[in-house]
Amino acid sequence: MNGDAPSLSTTPRLYVAEPLTAGGMVTLAGGQAHYLGSVMRRQPGDMVRLFNGRDGEWAAAVTDVAKRSLSLQLDRQTLPQEVAADLWLVAAPLKKGRIDWLAEKACELGVARLVLVTTQRTVVDKVNLERLQAHMIEAAEQCGRTGVPDIAAPVSLDRLLRDWPAERALIFADETGGAPLAAASAPAPAAILIGPEGGFTPSERAAIRACPQAVPVSLGPRILRADTAAVAAVAVWQATQGR
Amino acid sequence: MNGDAPSLSTTPRLYVAEPLTAGGMVTLAGGQAHYLGSVMRRQPGDMVRLFNGRDGEWAAAVTDVAKRSLSLQLDRQTLPQEVAADLWLVAAPLKKGRIDWLAEKACELGVARLVLVTTQRTVVDKVNLERLQAHMIEAAEQCGRTGVPDIAAPVSLDRLLRDWPAERALIFADETGGAPLAAASAPAPAAILIGPEGGFTPSERAAIRACPQAVPVSLGPRILRADTAAVAAVAVWQATQGR
Repeated sequence: MNGDAPSLSTTPRLYVAEPLTAGGMVTLAGGQAHYLGSVMRRQPGDMVRLFNGRDGEWAAAVTDVAKRSLSLQLDRQTLPQEVAADLWLVAAPLKKGRIDWLAEKACELGVARLVLVTTQRTVVDKVNLERLQAHMIEAAEQCGRTGVPDIAAPVSLDRLLRDWPAERALIFADETGGAPLAAASAPAPAAILIGPEGGFTPSERAAIRACPQAVPVSLGPRILRADTAAVAAVAVWQATQGR
Repeated sequence: MNGDAPSLSTTPRLYVAEPLTAGGMVTLAGGQAHYLGSVMRRQPGDMVRLFNGRDGEWAAAVTDVAKRSLSLQLDRQTLPQEVAADLWLVAAPLKKGRIDWLAEKACELGVARLVLVTTQRTVVDKVNLERLQAHMIEAAEQCGRTGVPDIAAPVSLDRLLRDWPAERALIFADETGGAPLAAASAPAPAAILIGPEGGFTPSERAAIRACPQAVPVSLGPRILRADTAAVAAVAVWQATQGR
């Protein structure tokens, strides 16, 4: 699916911050060096795949393995930089475990940005953004993406709606009604808004509906948990509008 | 969404085995009696909602609370028995945690039956069917279903294909090619087949494709973990073919 030659298909795949260009060198430290050097026991000459969200995916050969660092020489680009469909997932924080699952799935399903929004019924106050980012990086490494979704620090629903970008559709699952998502949703640039486990309050729902970009949709006849709704909605949008 | 009067919307909702008919009595014991009596502290007169997979959903009033049992009198039917779209999810067992998520999500998304299939790359030997059934019952109770998916004990892929029902489409996500699921999939009666984390072997893929009912589809350009693929595929099928 990603066009790799068979010899690369089981090679480790890592997200790095450094630029990736032909003939360039990358030096890893910390956890990544430990993972490649001690856990995966990579030796000079072994291949690794790297991506950084900008330059596509590159095959690189290990050149030096030290106690706390590992160096690689870039060989060739193996994947172009992905063009993710311009879809945001806007979700209320959920309990640890469920929000982690949501972040992982959002990344696998190709979301461009994860925006956290706090609402009246949000039960979780603190969100560990670093942990969520780490989950998304790991998901990107495993699922062949060449980019990692942005993650935005939590904002209130009021603030989100007040600052909502005029060109972006705000698709939200509304139990009080809306056409089926597969038929009614809007193309990119779009966002899918999922409320907390307890749902939106009537006044919040009214405020969302009053937003000019709002597109109320139904996710079907069954009640879905917030994390299920997020994954189902993103999957349906990608299948019908995205890629 | 389920037509409840507001006063019922926060009442406990339980799956029971007993028949549910007007004027009937239901006596709960064990965990359910403890949950309603001690945890939720229901008293005589309090309302509870019951369903059994056959008779729809019924409002029932608590009549008697004892140490180890709790009795209810059925009042009226509040939901008709659902007609779930005839969709099976056929999945290889995954590690504990992920297979539990999958069972929960499959139920929320309206699957009629969960079939477990073992393949060459399946890493999990034992599956606790009771635990998975319990997850699905809990999901059905929380998401407003009036039925719980069947769960079938694991069978080998060989056996599954050999005994495959002639009238049921076998939609399977194939990385080697297939039309997009939203466009190509088949209507009910259908099944969605998801392989283990390591995927199908080439010979397994050939055997699946040789099945007359097989419908190979693509789930998009990204690699999906098995649990993500299952949820995404079921959601897309329900949005485009089901309900």
